[in-house]
Amino acid sequence: MNTSIPGTGERTLVLATGRAHPELAEAVAKELGIGLLPVSAYDFANSETYVRFGESVRGTDIFLLQSHTAPVNQWLMEHLLMVDAAKRASARTVTVVAPFYAYARQDKKSRGREPISARLVADMLRTAGADRIMSVDLHTAQIQGFFDGPVDHLWAMPVLTDYVRSRVDLTNVAVVSPDAGRIRVAEQWADKLGGCPLAFVHKTRDVTRPNQAVANRVVGDVEGRECVLVDDLIDTGGTIAEAVNVIMSAGAKSVVVAATHGVLSDPAAQRLSECGASEVVVTDTLPIAAEKRFDGLTVLSIAPLIARAIREVFDDGSVTSLFDGNS
Amino acid sequence: MNTSIPGTGERTLVLATGRAHPELAEAVAKELGIGLLPVSAYDFANSETYVRFGESVRGTDIFLLQSHTAPVNQWLMEHLLMVDAAKRASARTVTVVAPFYAYARQDKKSRGREPISARLVADMLRTAGADRIMSVDLHTAQIQGFFDGPVDHLWAMPVLTDYVRSRVDLTNVAVVSPDAGRIRVAEQWADKLGGCPLAFVHKTRDVTRPNQAVANRVVGDVEGRECVLVDDLIDTGGTIAEAVNVIMSAGAKSVVVAATHGVLSDPAAQRLSECGASEVVVTDTLPIAAEKRFDGLTVLSIAPLIARAIREVFDDGSVTSLFDGNS
Amino acid sequence: MNTSIPGTGERTLVLATGRAHPELAEAVAKELGIGLLPVSAYDFANSETYVRFGESVRGTDIFLLQSHTAPVNQWLMEHLLMVDAAKRASARTVTVVAPFYAYARQDKKSRGREPISARLVADMLRTAGADRIMSVDLHTAQIQGFFDGPVDHLWAMPVLTDYVRSRVDLTNVAVVSPDAGRIRVAEQWADKLGGCPLAFVHKTRDVTRPNQAVANRVVGDVEGRECVLVDDLIDTGGTIAEAVNVIMSAGAKSVVVAATHGVLSDPAAQRLSECGASEVVVTDTLPIAAEKRFDGLTVLSIAPLIARAIREVFDDGSVTSLFDGNS
Amino acid sequence: MNTSIPGTGERTLVLATGRAHPELAEAVAKELGIGLLPVSAYDFANSETYVRFGESVRGTDIFLLQSHTAPVNQWLMEHLLMVDAAKRASARTVTVVAPFYAYARQDKKSRGREPISARLVADMLRTAGADRIMSVDLHTAQIQGFFDGPVDHLWAMPVLTDYVRSRVDLTNVAVVSPDAGRIRVAEQWADKLGGCPLAFVHKTRDVTRPNQAVANRVVGDVEGRECVLVDDLIDTGGTIAEAVNVIMSAGAKSVVVAATHGVLSDPAAQRLSECGASEVVVTDTLPIAAEKRFDGLTVLSIAPLIARAIREVFDDGSVTSLFDGNS
Amino acid sequence: MNTSIPGTGERTLVLATGRAHPELAEAVAKELGIGLLPVSAYDFANSETYVRFGESVRGTDIFLLQSHTAPVNQWLMEHLLMVDAAKRASARTVTVVAPFYAYARQDKKSRGREPISARLVADMLRTAGADRIMSVDLHTAQIQGFFDGPVDHLWAMPVLTDYVRSRVDLTNVAVVSPDAGRIRVAEQWADKLGGCPLAFVHKTRDVTRPNQAVANRVVGDVEGRECVLVDDLIDTGGTIAEAVNVIMSAGAKSVVVAATHGVLSDPAAQRLSECGASEVVVTDTLPIAAEKRFDGLTVLSIAPLIARAIREVFDDGSVTSLFDGNS
Amino acid sequence: MNTSIPGTGERTLVLATGRAHPELAEAVAKELGIGLLPVSAYDFANSETYVRFGESVRGTDIFLLQSHTAPVNQWLMEHLLMVDAAKRASARTVTVVAPFYAYARQDKKSRGREPISARLVADMLRTAGADRIMSVDLHTAQIQGFFDGPVDHLWAMPVLTDYVRSRVDLTNVAVVSPDAGRIRVAEQWADKLGGCPLAFVHKTRDVTRPNQAVANRVVGDVEGRECVLVDDLIDTGGTIAEAVNVIMSAGAKSVVVAATHGVLSDPAAQRLSECGASEVVVTDTLPIAAEKRFDGLTVLSIAPLIARAIREVFDDGSVTSLFDGNS
Repeated sequence: MNTSIPGTGERTLVLATGRAHPELAEAVAKELGIGLLPVSAYDFANSETYVRFGESVRGTDIFLLQSHTAPVNQWLMEHLLMVDAAKRASARTVTVVAPFYAYARQDKKSRGREPISARLVADMLRTAGADRIMSVDLHTAQIQGFFDGPVDHLWAMPVLTDYVRSRVDLTNVAVVSPDAGRIRVAEQWADKLGGCPLAFVHKTRDVTRPNQAVANRVVGDVEGRECVLVDDLIDTGGTIAEAVNVIMSAGAKSVVVAATHGVLSDPAAQRLSECGASEVVVTDTLPIAAEKRFDGLTVLSIAPLIARAIREVFDDGSVTSLFDGNS
Repeated sequence: MNTSIPGTGERTLVLATGRAHPELAEAVAKELGIGLLPVSAYDFANSETYVRFGESVRGTDIFLLQSHTAPVNQWLMEHLLMVDAAKRASARTVTVVAPFYAYARQDKKSRGREPISARLVADMLRTAGADRIMSVDLHTAQIQGFFDGPVDHLWAMPVLTDYVRSRVDLTNVAVVSPDAGRIRVAEQWADKLGGCPLAFVHKTRDVTRPNQAVANRVVGDVEGRECVLVDDLIDTGGTIAEAVNVIMSAGAKSVVVAATHGVLSDPAAQRLSECGASEVVVTDTLPIAAEKRFDGLTVLSIAPLIARAIREVFDDGSVTSLFDGNS
Repeated sequence: MNTSIPGTGERTLVLATGRAHPELAEAVAKELGIGLLPVSAYDFANSETYVRFGESVRGTDIFLLQSHTAPVNQWLMEHLLMVDAAKRASARTVTVVAPFYAYARQDKKSRGREPISARLVADMLRTAGADRIMSVDLHTAQIQGFFDGPVDHLWAMPVLTDYVRSRVDLTNVAVVSPDAGRIRVAEQWADKLGGCPLAFVHKTRDVTRPNQAVANRVVGDVEGRECVLVDDLIDTGGTIAEAVNVIMSAGAKSVVVAATHGVLSDPAAQRLSECGASEVVVTDTLPIAAEKRFDGLTVLSIAPLIARAIREVFDDGSVTSLFDGNS
Repeated sequence: MNTSIPGTGERTLVLATGRAHPELAEAVAKELGIGLLPVSAYDFANSETYVRFGESVRGTDIFLLQSHTAPVNQWLMEHLLMVDAAKRASARTVTVVAPFYAYARQDKKSRGREPISARLVADMLRTAGADRIMSVDLHTAQIQGFFDGPVDHLWAMPVLTDYVRSRVDLTNVAVVSPDAGRIRVAEQWADKLGGCPLAFVHKTRDVTRPNQAVANRVVGDVEGRECVLVDDLIDTGGTIAEAVNVIMSAGAKSVVVAATHGVLSDPAAQRLSECGASEVVVTDTLPIAAEKRFDGLTVLSIAPLIARAIREVFDDGSVTSLFDGNS
Repeated sequence: MNTSIPGTGERTLVLATGRAHPELAEAVAKELGIGLLPVSAYDFANSETYVRFGESVRGTDIFLLQSHTAPVNQWLMEHLLMVDAAKRASARTVTVVAPFYAYARQDKKSRGREPISARLVADMLRTAGADRIMSVDLHTAQIQGFFDGPVDHLWAMPVLTDYVRSRVDLTNVAVVSPDAGRIRVAEQWADKLGGCPLAFVHKTRDVTRPNQAVANRVVGDVEGRECVLVDDLIDTGGTIAEAVNVIMSAGAKSVVVAATHGVLSDPAAQRLSECGASEVVVTDTLPIAAEKRFDGLTVLSIAPLIARAIREVFDDGSVTSLFDGNS
Repeated sequence: MNTSIPGTGERTLVLATGRAHPELAEAVAKELGIGLLPVSAYDFANSETYVRFGESVRGTDIFLLQSHTAPVNQWLMEHLLMVDAAKRASARTVTVVAPFYAYARQDKKSRGREPISARLVADMLRTAGADRIMSVDLHTAQIQGFFDGPVDHLWAMPVLTDYVRSRVDLTNVAVVSPDAGRIRVAEQWADKLGGCPLAFVHKTRDVTRPNQAVANRVVGDVEGRECVLVDDLIDTGGTIAEAVNVIMSAGAKSVVVAATHGVLSDPAAQRLSECGASEVVVTDTLPIAAEKRFDGLTVLSIAPLIARAIREVFDDGSVTSLFDGNS
């Protein structure tokens, strides 16, 4: 008698989300041509979180999308609970899709006796059962090394530059970095915009007169130009608003602000709407509530990029190829 | 030149067993329509155990069935050795099928300086290489949380209730729990039997007169009824025999005893055969030697349920669906 | 020349806390005769949490006290960050003191595709760097088995019974359990109160008439007695308030409610203050905000017990001995 | 106010044992000048094992002695349960003392699809919570590499040679190995006995005439000599008895058999007592039941060696120094 | 709407190599009918190594071939870096193919305070992300137990014996082991060559006259015979050259030397070419530089064997079957 | 009878080194007032490395100093072997002291399919048995997060600034960064030198004219000033030599180069000695061979700093305090 049963080995992709940013998950699902796997998620009276998948996930390649918006600890914990549930329900692989990764700015000990919170998040996801992480524009690339497994690191730059290209006069544009630490990103933007001029705002003091309490100043020529001010995220908007002010004072014709993650903690909306920028462009890696929206804010969809990356992962294609080898 | 070789990715299910309960493994294999994978298993002169698979298990989804009957440590160790051998022989996944899970009753520290043996068993199975555990009616559901991976928890209740339904007058039946701690299971039985009355035996002392050394008594109305006394396992039979006695003394017409696991340690056979129960019904999650069998003992086969669950696991179906979502 | 430097090997105990329940930490520190180690803890604009120890913890045996009150995920994450910081700052051992342990009620899969959240919490604490957990009256004792290391499980019962003993007429008292599942705890109470009568409220339906939608009823004799209704925690107070009602309807003279953990989620304060209980007694394992307090609520301090346990741990004494071997 | 409590950091050594070989544990304790830590250990009706320490082990350096005699799986599991209990009871370090280490002969895959049982045992001990292993004369030295931590490997040879030296005429002695694989040990014996001649029994066929089914033969000169036949263990005694026969046939004056581990599985006692050896010398790493003892069997105590090693471990001395650097 | 996307689950085999022994990798690839996956590998100015795969390896079953030749640490580290890169690039499985496994001779502590380097290598490979190891003729079989996962252990003997069979007069051949510890391998050779006579060189002293500084001598009859001297590896060639000398002095007609691994550290080439052997046969598990080659050296290709084993692994066939069950 | 033996719990510090940079280890030992623990370390003929401690390390807090100079893989592996040996020899804690940490510049995936080598190094050290890492000026601070345990991160800046302060006219000094990415370090230097002017060299193109292939230029005012050019390490010296050239061309009076790690790969010595710098200052975190030394090279000793840090670690003091809380 035969001692074995053959099986086809077929695989199945499913996508599920928690409550942090359902609109993005819906949009990604739509791009993939499927519906979201139903999930029950709610809080008990004492604020403990409950999650349950509404359909079997056994043997699936499940992608669990949750963006770590405020309240961050709430949505991070919900994410972890979903991972645990998927593991215990026999998912074949569990991919954590965190378009905005919690605690990315706490990626080192600035002083003694601090945690390294970004590493802790990576370890907790691993412990819960994550096989792979997918994220967009991590604050520092070293965070990939915090996870003991594959990290698919997506770049939002093509999404942003494609849009900005249509909003400025490419013959008269300049790219500006809000501080010296971000010049490399600004250089990549300048390349994408056809090799335009580059400038940056030098913070806190004049490079050549350190003991003088001079205001920020622009290094590079922005006079008469349509400027694009670029950063990875906008949190309370203080740095960006100040930079716009300095650039306009330096004689720029206009400033478009572009960033991947619109954290927009209070009072970002007010600051940005009043700072003099002609437009503020972000992606929807994070949800942006109605009360945070203002005239001049443009939110681009990151969903097509995430959907393409998920397909590449599932089809054993190449995520690197989506970015010309740079991922 | 091409740099890769494509493969079909097909999967293969095989089932193997140790020496603890080969009849059950044979029955499960038969249900699956296959033969058991040949295994050499014997003890050396100094009682060390040896196991070896007789055929290649490379790339297979192997299910290793062993029920932890006495001598428990012997069969548990044999189980662990099989898991280790399967891992080292490149099985794709290793599922431990333990219809009766060893040390389930030692699931907490009742007093200081005790082990938590049920957790240790889970960790040892993990260490040896188990990817998943399948078991039937774990003593407490928390044991699922002891294993760092998926646990497929099967319920024998449908098997038992289907049988018992045909053995009693459903218009005059009552379900009885042998103690207060098991009332929830008895409630589920009562539901399954059409919402019949429920009672339980209150142990050790009268609820209302605590300082009096009163014998056990029945709470609830059993007089004139055909009673079904239910528990998860029967070990030495002391509690059950006493309960039958109490129930009969309370005027019951008859008592059928039903439990998932027939541990039947001495002197269970004697006690049960003499206790006054009209029938004792268990499943064959554990082997029941000829000398432990007695008139009035009915052993139902758990093999069809295990076989169905194995198929669901292998086919990426849903084990939960076998139990209306409650697993 | 000598190739080594001798050291004394002395040890140091320090205690630190997050922001969840500083009053309890202060009280424990006072019992220990020390001050709390200074900790900076605050939230960034986007709600990410930051912690840092204000003094060196190198080589110390640090006890990190945080009770998992609402918002649970917030305080749990803060707890984890403190553990990570302590580990990276070279603490010799890290003991997590969680008087109320988050997600203890999610200790099993009630249905398929759920997480086992209490296990996940244990694993996250381990991953962050916890060597030992200390907690009070875990919802189920099996949770001790979720942590891969020592768990010092404290019992609040002596604290509660010592107080209640002085509030009731011990010659006319009865202990009542709010449901069948808690009878064992009630039995221990009855013992401690000198072997008084015992009763319990039977929920949802009459044991002997299952298909009739009868209200809850008291099993056991409470008529004319001063009753003590006991449970491990009071969340929204629904079950307890209903039980008090039933007990009073059954002719009790009065009801004192006693529970370890005063979760007191809305609308617990209202329910309890209006339910007819003469007094509600809890400990301060959880903070109880002013607006949740009401006439008739008594909050006993758990700090002396925790302080004694911490001393036993540090002095390599016996925590078990604090409870007559039952821990 | 001070934020810390200083402690002395003193350490405590305790010794406990299971039921496999209590005589040896008693003897070691006596050498150390202490009593054994009380342990409750018994089997439940269904053969599951229960253990509990009778006194607090918090903060101690506990040594858990259990020799893996038959039934091996029983005593190995009891050993694991004691380790788990010690870990959960907050022992500072747990040292497993296994004078005879289970499954040491299954240290490799001789054929495909076998387990590597000796590695599994090491991993299970680690998983349960062992920090260090102490054993005597492991079957192969590579087993030390199976454990992820320190292994204190003791040599019984000095114990054996000291005794044998007094039993033979050192001017007319020869050391014999029962097969080619053990010649290195025999060489060490010959050194210890003052550089005496060396011989070995060549098994299964004549080296120079492979196709001839010749009986075993002695290589080396034993004629007229008092021979010492040495091995690491004696199991059923077949090889040893045959070797004695061959050596005597080759004209030896007498044969003393010496081995570390007296496994003595049936029918070893009969074979050895009838084989013609003048004396059989083993140590008591394993218990030797009365019915296995016979005239001519000498059992030397290994307790002093184990006690000295335990002291060196506890005092941060050097175990290596006990053996002139060779451990 | 459908909530999932089906996939075919097909698998892909790829083979890549570092710089240690590219010829062997090329030969294996050719046997498999594919090209090697392109790899960039070079050293930075300060000698740190860099590797990168030139094509996507996502979802593949990648085999990373590197033989640990001198400088061993350099090539071992390069191997580890390739494993890490493959894991982080989402390879489905990573198989380390190390025809010669580094540090295999440091498989135990010969003295106290040594590392067990072969175990460390296994652990490092595991940590980097290796799922399986494939190697040829490990120095001791116990090394398989050092890796926590499957080890496919290949035997070069069939390759060597097939060749040698054609080089000697099978009616007049003898197999010789260079020392007593290798007799078992020599026995297997003798079987393969049709049951020919067997002999071995006894090192360091005469078995029967231990205190006399006698030169090595041959045990067994080699006079007039064509001898085959067999070992697992040849390092500096000292032992082998001396053995050839002794065998020839004992009257042998000729000596062919056969070994799996040609380490050939200086001055092996000189010693072997001058020692009097008629031919030295090794496989190409290690690269043999032109300056190490000499007349009389024959290098057999191990590539066909490795390629067959890789196919069996990928096709879920049986590696054991390649060796009649002995692997 | 007493069941335990008390011990003093005293601790012992020892320091040992491999062969990479013995001078530094000697200097640190001298600062500590002890001798180095003797270590045997050599290579076998085939380049495998052997290490052994010459004295017992049982129970010690051992610090293993090895700086990862070229050949990096050789010394890294030797470091790992020492860690393994210390763990297996029962050291109480093992601290890896790597003044220069291997592969620190490979701390992220710059492109797809690369390893994250700095994380792999951290994991290998952990796997071998390291409890803590001590290093000097890691290339990026995130590397601390790669190790799952405490990292004591030392800063060489005080050592360098103390020296440089005496070599320049503090009233006429300027600090220059060789590129934009290092400005933050240069700012700290400027602070330490009393708030002097700051400048940096802008690489590859003119910020304001991106498409023009302009040479590097200095941003900030250096004319007539004594400049200090600062970096974390000097490898081949190309960037530094070019920067010196640009600074001098911009009218600087002189340039002193200061860096922590003198990697000095060829042709650094030549480039630096000819580039026009008045002095090149590095520390001895790495050995600097005689042939790499040149006039104008000053090597400061890092040994006092490392010795102080080791004492703080051993005495449970504060390493952070050595750097005003910034570590």
